[in-house]
Amino acid sequence: MKTHILAASIALAGTSLAWATTEEPIKPILAAKVTDPALVELGKKLFFDPRLSKSGFISCNSCHNLSMGGTDNLKTSIGHQWNQGPINAPTVLNSSLSLAQFWDGRAKDLQAQAGGPIDNPGEMGSTHGLAVAVLQSMPAYVADFRKSFGQDKINIEQVTKAIAAFEETLVTPNSRFDLWLKGDQKALSGKELAGYKLFKDSGCVACHNGPAVGGNSYQKMGVVAPYQASSPAEGRFAVTRKEADRFNFKVPTLRNVELTYPYFHDGAVNTLREAVDTMGRIQLGKKFTSEENASIVAFLKTLTGDQPDFKLPALPPSSETTPKPQPFAKK
Amino acid sequence: MKTHILAASIALAGTSLAWATTEEPIKPILAAKVTDPALVELGKKLFFDPRLSKSGFISCNSCHNLSMGGTDNLKTSIGHQWNQGPINAPTVLNSSLSLAQFWDGRAKDLQAQAGGPIDNPGEMGSTHGLAVAVLQSMPAYVADFRKSFGQDKINIEQVTKAIAAFEETLVTPNSRFDLWLKGDQKALSGKELAGYKLFKDSGCVACHNGPAVGGNSYQKMGVVAPYQASSPAEGRFAVTRKEADRFNFKVPTLRNVELTYPYFHDGAVNTLREAVDTMGRIQLGKKFTSEENASIVAFLKTLTGDQPDFKLPALPPSSETTPKPQPFAKK
Repeated sequence: MKTHILAASIALAGTSLAWATTEEPIKPILAAKVTDPALVELGKKLFFDPRLSKSGFISCNSCHNLSMGGTDNLKTSIGHQWNQGPINAPTVLNSSLSLAQFWDGRAKDLQAQAGGPIDNPGEMGSTHGLAVAVLQSMPAYVADFRKSFGQDKINIEQVTKAIAAFEETLVTPNSRFDLWLKGDQKALSGKELAGYKLFKDSGCVACHNGPAVGGNSYQKMGVVAPYQASSPAEGRFAVTRKEADRFNFKVPTLRNVELTYPYFHDGAVNTLREAVDTMGRIQLGKKFTSEENASIVAFLKTLTGDQPDFKLPALPPSSETTPKPQPFAKK
Repeated sequence: MKTHILAASIALAGTSLAWATTEEPIKPILAAKVTDPALVELGKKLFFDPRLSKSGFISCNSCHNLSMGGTDNLKTSIGHQWNQGPINAPTVLNSSLSLAQFWDGRAKDLQAQAGGPIDNPGEMGSTHGLAVAVLQSMPAYVADFRKSFGQDKINIEQVTKAIAAFEETLVTPNSRFDLWLKGDQKALSGKELAGYKLFKDSGCVACHNGPAVGGNSYQKMGVVAPYQASSPAEGRFAVTRKEADRFNFKVPTLRNVELTYPYFHDGAVNTLREAVDTMGRIQLGKKFTSEENASIVAFLKTLTGDQPDFKLPALPPSSETTPKPQPFAKK
């Protein structure tokens, strides 16, 4: 009610821009507000540092590649010693807008997530203790941590806090869709607008809404028809152990979806065309015509926003005491 | 002779700066002159694009990581399906200054080198045909190639030419040593200068000279005493099949050597201290004292120059026709 009154009064003041924004189920992405630039810079280095892995080869950026929409564009990820991961790597872009992290929401926030891959034997293959020892051995990192945390002794909470602080900056404002939301009528073509209308009218928007166009609820994969997944993942059930949560997954963000192929938690589908077709069939019981499908895909491509825009970080060299990478050691 | 006259006349004009530069066996690194910025930008994208590999996971930057001195800081590299490479990955930084590429000089220049890892089954695991087909499937890449080469049909020569053009920009001027060479007397400490004098007086400079402090000759590994390598590599012999070239390797650049550990073609040595000790023993028949060793190491650390300084490139998305990565396909 409050929102309606506010929107109405703004509209009365002649600001159609604010009206559109308030009424649409998708909201614009706001630019990141950096409150602690030193911590963000430290987190950026950590994000790109493969020495957080046992092999010295895999960094956060390996599977959440910031040159490729924050994903690896693989069906399932490659981990330590070429382990085949069980699930599709979600994009790190706009992940701060999600209600929780991982497809099953088992991490409550980005900091809780960041520790997961480091000590997962099939991902980065290290341990929190080893990762901290690696960082602690490098004077330049110790100086960075001291600057941010006021002490010389590094711990894993500091590491994950810094990575999360960097990841919080990885939002992608200024997509063409957001320009349209903010009142630029020319930002979208007729086909794209028709696709957006269909996206709303068909019910896609029931789950894919908010600033991230998703990421804010768990939903069953296969509401109307079953989904034959190629992944063994059980979704939210793995966390809650409630039967009702079996095969419920966090709704993925559709921001930058043009860049984050392949799609679904098992990465089974390569194109937006197929993804829209499958979603229509198994979630909505709807068969989109080729034309309808194409217009929805055209709309989805307007959700690509500003990609990460920063200089490649230079990492400090290892010291004589840095534990050595062990890429080929037996497990 | 001409050089001497020039240097003398400049010295007479009171420019001690130019005098020092001319007389020293190590020359400053010059900043890169970019004549074709569009080609360099294209090459940068290609350098960071893991889709040039069969897995979609390994890019040039995986083993020549520009955040880590242009190397992977591993003993030997990790290739397709976690293949253990036979040799230490040389730094790509200042590689344009080398007389040839690879440890055995089998590629005459950067363009000839760039094609090697792409279709090496143990490195990127692709083929030139597949890599070109991947690029050809993406309209944004086709537009880039058209801009640089005036045609829509991409070929591998264009790909390697673009990568080489980018790599030619990866020079690292303005090291403290270069500032000293250019006349800044305060750029080096007494210990560092003593290390440089010892580096010259002991004979290190016989092979490690010129702007790259190496990279301009092949030399036998183990002149005075044999080197027990952990790698099967035979050096220049593999190219020439001349017995005299057996175990001759391209002298590595010492630019940024603080960042390019581990050392030697087999990556057997982790620290500059050990590397200086081994080189003294097997190449010069000399045992450096701890103090001498430390001063040479101090000098070597002054060779770290400006690291790559550019924004992380954003890569174009694959299209529906892009051949899919095959990370887990049987070989």
